[in-house]
Amino acid sequence: MTSILFRNATVLPMTAEADAPKYFTGWVGIVGNRIERVEAGDAGADEFLAAHPDARLFDCRGKLVMPGLVNTHCHAAMTLQRGYADDIALMEWLNDYIWPFEGRQTADDVALGMTLGIVEMLLGGVTSFVDMYYHEDRCVEVAERMGIRAMLGCNYFDSNIDEVFPQIERAEAAAAGSLRVQIAVAPHSAYTVSPENLLRGRKLADRLGLRMMTHVAETRDEVRIIGERFGCTPVEHLDRLGLLDERLIAAHCVHLTDDDLRTLVERRVVVSHNPQSNMKISSGVAPVERLRKAGACVTVATDGTCSNNDLDMWEELRTASFLQKSYTGDPCALPAYEALRMATVNGARAFGLEGLLGVLRPGALADVVVVDLRKPHLQPVHDLVGNLVYCGKASDVETVVVDGRVVVEKRQIEGIDLERLYADVAAAVERIKRA
Amino acid sequence: MTSILFRNATVLPMTAEADAPKYFTGWVGIVGNRIERVEAGDAGADEFLAAHPDARLFDCRGKLVMPGLVNTHCHAAMTLQRGYADDIALMEWLNDYIWPFEGRQTADDVALGMTLGIVEMLLGGVTSFVDMYYHEDRCVEVAERMGIRAMLGCNYFDSNIDEVFPQIERAEAAAAGSLRVQIAVAPHSAYTVSPENLLRGRKLADRLGLRMMTHVAETRDEVRIIGERFGCTPVEHLDRLGLLDERLIAAHCVHLTDDDLRTLVERRVVVSHNPQSNMKISSGVAPVERLRKAGACVTVATDGTCSNNDLDMWEELRTASFLQKSYTGDPCALPAYEALRMATVNGARAFGLEGLLGVLRPGALADVVVVDLRKPHLQPVHDLVGNLVYCGKASDVETVVVDGRVVVEKRQIEGIDLERLYADVAAAVERIKRA
Repeated sequence: MTSILFRNATVLPMTAEADAPKYFTGWVGIVGNRIERVEAGDAGADEFLAAHPDARLFDCRGKLVMPGLVNTHCHAAMTLQRGYADDIALMEWLNDYIWPFEGRQTADDVALGMTLGIVEMLLGGVTSFVDMYYHEDRCVEVAERMGIRAMLGCNYFDSNIDEVFPQIERAEAAAAGSLRVQIAVAPHSAYTVSPENLLRGRKLADRLGLRMMTHVAETRDEVRIIGERFGCTPVEHLDRLGLLDERLIAAHCVHLTDDDLRTLVERRVVVSHNPQSNMKISSGVAPVERLRKAGACVTVATDGTCSNNDLDMWEELRTASFLQKSYTGDPCALPAYEALRMATVNGARAFGLEGLLGVLRPGALADVVVVDLRKPHLQPVHDLVGNLVYCGKASDVETVVVDGRVVVEKRQIEGIDLERLYADVAAAVERIKRA
Repeated sequence: MTSILFRNATVLPMTAEADAPKYFTGWVGIVGNRIERVEAGDAGADEFLAAHPDARLFDCRGKLVMPGLVNTHCHAAMTLQRGYADDIALMEWLNDYIWPFEGRQTADDVALGMTLGIVEMLLGGVTSFVDMYYHEDRCVEVAERMGIRAMLGCNYFDSNIDEVFPQIERAEAAAAGSLRVQIAVAPHSAYTVSPENLLRGRKLADRLGLRMMTHVAETRDEVRIIGERFGCTPVEHLDRLGLLDERLIAAHCVHLTDDDLRTLVERRVVVSHNPQSNMKISSGVAPVERLRKAGACVTVATDGTCSNNDLDMWEELRTASFLQKSYTGDPCALPAYEALRMATVNGARAFGLEGLLGVLRPGALADVVVVDLRKPHLQPVHDLVGNLVYCGKASDVETVVVDGRVVVEKRQIEGIDLERLYADVAAAVERIKRA
C-alpha cells in the first residue's frame, strides 16, 4: 500500500469542537486510501516514516493541510456551454441556447465537458462532487480515470425517463466495485417530473441502493406551478411522496415556508446551497442561516457553469457567507468556520460518508488538499480560517490527494495535456453549434 | 524612451461602441508611458518593431491584452488587519479591534501594510487605486517605488483635522511632479466631519488643485444621523455644502432616495461601488443598476481588507454583477461588459483621466495587463467578456505594465522579496497587537 506523509504543516482537520483551536502545526500520515494519523507537533512523524519507509514525503512549511472540498451540486459537463448565454432571460436562455445545444451533443461530448469540469475542480481543491446530467453512464470512466470522487446523478424528465432508467442500470454496473464513483437517481424537479415518475425513481433507487437528488424550490415560478398543480409547496409535495430523507440531496431550497424548513430538518435532507447561481440567474436568496440554525444539513455547491460560470468552491464559500450577511442584515451571520464546515463536514453527508469525508482524522478517507499560505492575499495571519474563507483562491491549492492517490502536484494533473483538452473542447463546441 | 510590443494577442481595448465586436486578434505598441498603436491583425507590428528596434516583445498567443483595472476605493494599509476581526458586530469591530490597532501603528507600519496591499493589487492586474487612510504622506514613496498609479486620499475626522492638513501639504509636496501619484483630500464622512471641516477640506482641495473623496450613505445609521442632525439625506447635505461635483469620489452610496440619485447624476459625482464590503458588513445593496441607467458614473472597488478581505477586483466585478441580478430580480441586470467598464473606463474618471486611462487606444496612458486565457476555467470561449467577468481570476494575470513600465512579469514583481515582506508584516502586526 502506498503511503504519504505531510510534515511541518499547518493542519486544519475540521474536527474542532465549538471553542477549541481550529488548527495546529503538525503532520498527517496516509496509508492506502485512509488517513492513519493526524497529530500536532512532529514527534510521531519519524515513527510513521519508520513504519512506512516508502512514504511520499511532502514538506509543508508555510502550507496548510485540510480536507478536500465537496461540491454537492453541479452539471460538470456544462463547461461546454460556459459563457454561451449570459445576461439573458431564463426562457430565452433555455429555449434558444441551452436545450438546442444539449440536444445536439453526444455522450462523448458530455464526457469531454466533464473532463474539463473535473480538471477545473481538482485544480481548485474539490476532491468530491455531486453531478446531475445526461449520459452519466458514459462518465463513470471519466471520473474513475481522473481520480476524483464523484456521485453521478442520472437526470431525467417525464419525457425521457424510459431512456434514462436503462442508463442508470448501466452506470450502476459500470461503477460497481468502485471506491470513488457512486451513481444516483436524479429526477429533474417536482414541476418537470410527475408524481408517478418521481416514485418510479424512488423505487429504482431503493432497488439498486442508490441515493437521489433533485432541484427543490429554486424559483418562484416553480413554487407557483406546484401550488397550482398540487395545492402545496414543493417540499410538501416531495414529502407526501415519501422522497424526503437523508438519502436525498435537495438543490437550491430558495423559497421555503417555515413548515418547509422544519420538514427539511426533520427528514434530515441534505440541502445544497448554490449562492452564485441563485444570484446570477436571479432565483432569490436561500434562507441558509435559518436552515442552519434550525439544524438542517446545509452544504455548498457551484451549480453548472452556465449559471456561475466557474466551478470554484472558494468563491462559492465566500459568497455563501457574504450573501447571508447581506440578506439577514447581520454581519455575524454564517461565520467563516461554519461556511467551511458546509463545504467539508456537511458535504460528506451528501455521499453518506459522514465522519469519513470532509475531515482529517484517523480512519477517514484520504481526500486531502495542500494550500500554499505564502500568498500576499493570505498574509498576515490573524485568523487562518477567516483568511481561507474570505480570501482563499482556487489557485492557492498546490497538491490534491483523493482516496490516497496524488492527483494534483505543483498545480499539475498527471496525464492531462491541457492544450490538447482545450483544442478538443473548442472543436466539439464548434461542431455542436454548427450542427 | 522604452517601448513594448504585445503581439499575437487577443485585444480587449474597452473602446467598443454598443453593438460592435468587443475584442479582436491584434497587437498593442507602447512608447514611453503612452500607448502608441492598437491594431487588429499583425501587419503594422513589423513596422512598429522597425521604428522601435529595442522594443520589449511579448508574444501573447493564447493571451489577452486589456487595460489595467482601477480600484476606486480602498484602505490598502489595512492589509495589516486582514482577518483581525471577522464575523463580529460593527461597533465591537471598531471599538475593540480596528481603532485600538490603528492607534498603535506608526507611519512605517502603514507604509508596510500599503506595500503588501500594492503587491496583492499589482499581481491581480490592478494598475490604479484610490486610497483613503492615514499617513499618506509617508506612502507617496511606497506607491512611487512599487510602480503603481495611485490617488492617495488623506483621511481626516473633526478630531484630527489639524494633524492631517499639514500631512496633505507634505504629501502634495512629495508627489509634486509625479506622473503616477496624486494626493486627494478625504474627509471621512458627513457624520464624522462637521460642515465647517468639510468646507475647510474643500477649500484646501481648491487651493492645491486636488480631488476629494468621502464615504456617502454607506449605512442606515449614517442616513439616520444626518437626518437627525441636518434634516436631510447625506447626499443633500453634501450638495448644500457644494461638495458634489466630478472631482468627488463618493464611496458606497448604498442608501439613496430618488432625488439623491438624480443629484449624483447631475453633479457628475464618481460613485464607488463596493459590493463585497457592503455584503460582508451588512450595509445593504447599492442601487447600481438604477444609478447606471440614470447615467451616473459608477465605478467598482474593494474597500479595505477588513471588510472584504482581499483586494481582488475580479471577484469584485463579478460580485457587482451577481448582486445586481439578485437584488433587482433581473438576470439581465449589470451585464458582463458593463461591469468591466465600471472597473476600467469609468474608473478613469475617478482620476480625472477619462479616455486616458482604462482604455487601450493611441495616446492613452500605458497601463496594460496580460491575462493568460489558457486556463480550464476560461475554456471554451463562447464569449470572452463573459468568461473574464464571470470566471476571471486575479491569478490569471501574468504581466502588468503601469505607465509604460513592466512591473509584473510571469507573476513576479521585480525587486520584491515576498518572504521578507511577509516576515516584516508578521513582526509589525505582533508588535502592534502587544503594544
